[in-house]
Amino acid sequence: MASINSIPEKTIERLSEYRRTLLSCHKRGITHIFSHVLAGIHGITAVQVRRDLMLIGFSSDTKKGYDVKTLIDFINGILDSESAMNIAVIGMGHLGRAIAKYLNGKGLKLRVTAAFDIAPDKVDCDIDGIPCYHMDRFEEIVEASDISIVVISSPSRVAPSLVVPIINAGIKGVLNFTSTPLHFPQGIAAENYDITTIFEKVAYFVKESDDMGDKN
Amino acid sequence: MASINSIPEKTIERLSEYRRTLLSCHKRGITHIFSHVLAGIHGITAVQVRRDLMLIGFSSDTKKGYDVKTLIDFINGILDSESAMNIAVIGMGHLGRAIAKYLNGKGLKLRVTAAFDIAPDKVDCDIDGIPCYHMDRFEEIVEASDISIVVISSPSRVAPSLVVPIINAGIKGVLNFTSTPLHFPQGIAAENYDITTIFEKVAYFVKESDDMGDKN
Repeated sequence: MASINSIPEKTIERLSEYRRTLLSCHKRGITHIFSHVLAGIHGITAVQVRRDLMLIGFSSDTKKGYDVKTLIDFINGILDSESAMNIAVIGMGHLGRAIAKYLNGKGLKLRVTAAFDIAPDKVDCDIDGIPCYHMDRFEEIVEASDISIVVISSPSRVAPSLVVPIINAGIKGVLNFTSTPLHFPQGIAAENYDITTIFEKVAYFVKESDDMGDKN
Repeated sequence: MASINSIPEKTIERLSEYRRTLLSCHKRGITHIFSHVLAGIHGITAVQVRRDLMLIGFSSDTKKGYDVKTLIDFINGILDSESAMNIAVIGMGHLGRAIAKYLNGKGLKLRVTAAFDIAPDKVDCDIDGIPCYHMDRFEEIVEASDISIVVISSPSRVAPSLVVPIINAGIKGVLNFTSTPLHFPQGIAAENYDITTIFEKVAYFVKESDDMGDKN
C-alpha cells in the first residue's frame, strides 16, 4: 500500500494491535503498562514498542510505564477518523457474511452498512441487518450511502471485473479477500488478503518440522 | 514464525500466490509465462520472481518463459505434503464456519475435518458436513483424527485458555484469528491473523488521503 505520510504501514498495524491490548488492560482495571510488557504480549522487542510510540510523538513517565487510558486516546487520535467510516461488502457468501458480522460486532469506528451480490435470493434482502443490493446499483448506492471502503469476498474469477466499478464509484480503500490479486491506481489503499496463503504457509512449516522429525 | 529451513517465510507466501495464478493460467490454456508477467500480476518486480524461483532451484528456458505446468508441479513438490493435512476449527461461529467452508471448497491438500465448540446447540452436531465436538474432547479427537493444524476462531477472551490444550494435543500449526495474540513454543508454527488490524490499517490510509484532499 502506498504510504502518503511519514508513519510506516507496519507501525500502523502495530498501533492497531497495541490498542486492542490496551483496551483489554483498561477493562481489567490496569492503569499503567511498561513497554517490555506490551512488547512481550505482541512477541516483539521493547525497543520496537518505544520506537513506534516515539514515531507518533507519544512520551510518558517511564518510571510507572505508559498510562493506559492516555495511550488509548492518543492512538485513537492517530487511527480513527472523526465520524464512523462506512464499508460495503461485495459478495455475501459465507466469508462476506462472516466478515460483516465480525466487524459490526466489534464496536469499531468502521461499519458495514451495505452489501452487494447478484444472486436473486440475496438481492433486495436484509442479510444480518445489512441491506443487500444488486451489483448493478453499486455506484448509485456507494454515493448515496457515503461508502469509502469495500470488502471483496466474491468468487475469485469475478474479482477483476470489480476494479473499474470500484474506481468509478470513488472508493478509497479496498480489502480483497479473493485469490486474485488486484491493483488499483494511487490514491486507493488496497490490501490483498488471501486466506489460502497463510494456510499454505503454516502447512509448509508443519510439513518441514515433520520431515525434520523423521530424520532425527 | 520460526523458520527451520532455508526458504524464507515471505518466499513461501509468494510461492503459494504464484501457484494460484499459474493454476488459473493453466486452466485457461496458457502454457508459458514470463517472469515479468507473473511479477506484474502480483505487483512485484521480475527480479523478485526470479530470485524466489532460483531459491527453490527452479530454472527454465528463459526465451519462452516458464513452462506453467512444470512450475506448478515444482511448487507442489515444495509446498504440499504427500497426504492431505487435517485441520480442526476451534469456535464454530460465523468466522469459523466461513473459514471451514472456504477451505474445504478450495480443493487444497488441507481439509477441515473436525470442529470444537462449547455451545450446546453445536456440540455433537454436524455443521456443514464437519462433526463438531465439545472442547473437553479436544486431545482425544485430535489424536484419533490425526489433526495437525488448528484454526482459532473462538471469542478473543477465550483464546489464552486454548494454548495449553493445543500444546498438549501435539498440534504443529496454529492460525489464530482472534484479537488476542498467542505465543507457542518452538516447533509449533503459529500465525496471529487479526482481521481487525488490516481494516484499521486501510481505514487509516483512507482517512489520511481524505485529510490530504481537504488541504489541497
